[in-house]
Amino acid sequence: MILDSENLSLYDLYRLLSGTVLPRPIAFVSTVSPDGVFNLAPFSFYTILCSKPAMLGISIARRDGQKKDTVRNIELTGDFVVNVVTEELTERMNITAADYPLGIDEFQEAKLTPLESDMVKSPRLAESPVNMECRLDRVLEFGRVPTSSFVIGEVVRFHIKDEFYQNGRIDFKKMRPIGRLAGDSYCRISDLFDMKRPGE
Amino acid sequence: MILDSENLSLYDLYRLLSGTVLPRPIAFVSTVSPDGVFNLAPFSFYTILCSKPAMLGISIARRDGQKKDTVRNIELTGDFVVNVVTEELTERMNITAADYPLGIDEFQEAKLTPLESDMVKSPRLAESPVNMECRLDRVLEFGRVPTSSFVIGEVVRFHIKDEFYQNGRIDFKKMRPIGRLAGDSYCRISDLFDMKRPGE
Repeated sequence: MILDSENLSLYDLYRLLSGTVLPRPIAFVSTVSPDGVFNLAPFSFYTILCSKPAMLGISIARRDGQKKDTVRNIELTGDFVVNVVTEELTERMNITAADYPLGIDEFQEAKLTPLESDMVKSPRLAESPVNMECRLDRVLEFGRVPTSSFVIGEVVRFHIKDEFYQNGRIDFKKMRPIGRLAGDSYCRISDLFDMKRPGE
Repeated sequence: MILDSENLSLYDLYRLLSGTVLPRPIAFVSTVSPDGVFNLAPFSFYTILCSKPAMLGISIARRDGQKKDTVRNIELTGDFVVNVVTEELTERMNITAADYPLGIDEFQEAKLTPLESDMVKSPRLAESPVNMECRLDRVLEFGRVPTSSFVIGEVVRFHIKDEFYQNGRIDFKKMRPIGRLAGDSYCRISDLFDMKRPGE
């Protein structure tokens, strides 16, 4: 089967890409609007860009041609927090993924707890085992008419619950993050295996 | 536990980020040098950027301060292919992850089969269920002294083995891709579940 991108619609391409590039980590992003309304939403087009400085990138698609609240807040305040989604948080994360009108606080909708951050204005998520306070570095727009904002931020401070931290490492087996697949599917990371690189 | 990035080394930050941002998809990237030597290597700092045009981004760290062959080839030829790593390909992928000197063809080392691509110079991997032929869009450098190249490419053609394609979707359950965790760990996507977004 050969498919050329130029003959495919945005939705066709979205289905192919999201079914091929997986499993994906989930950035559960908390922000605040200039008038103080909190926002929380999950995104899975998300990657590490660089270790020092610690840079993350998250691509956030527009909705009906408009930037989502997350992107607007980040551009207005210059910061955001990335929280980890664990198995335990799955259903509450899903509640935040609905299309709420501007001005609705997804923390309240999902009965989740915002905590004040130390170095940024955006709140962090109390229920999450790791919070990364990020300062906006830049936003790159993708798409012919822009359809996606690639938000690049620098992690300035990590909050890690003690039980998930061990000798400089995250105990991810205990943390039990979930991964995003395509369609309505997600995966747990329970079916894991180890493999050393040759020569190590 | 609170950790500030400015007090952490590149290696400390690498361990925290790779233990927090997971599970990660794996881009198994095939390229060719200007003198015709093939290269194949896996990278997991990898994301979808945009659906139309279909854009992917892969962050590739330098080794001993030097760009890896993958990045050099991509900059010289202007293209690359991203292949999917399945459970079946795991051990052979691992062989390609060793530090080979320039001029070594990882396809040969791992007994994998390069096929000619249609629209790019880089080869594609016969054993992979999906190959995405990509044209280089741009490379962004990250790090104070640059330490990572974020390679952005546009998927121009998809090759999908018929058994993994169904009505515009990839049958990812059948494809069985593996995900990258931290340290020496990987995961299968066998432990999956479905969850509809509210209102859908």
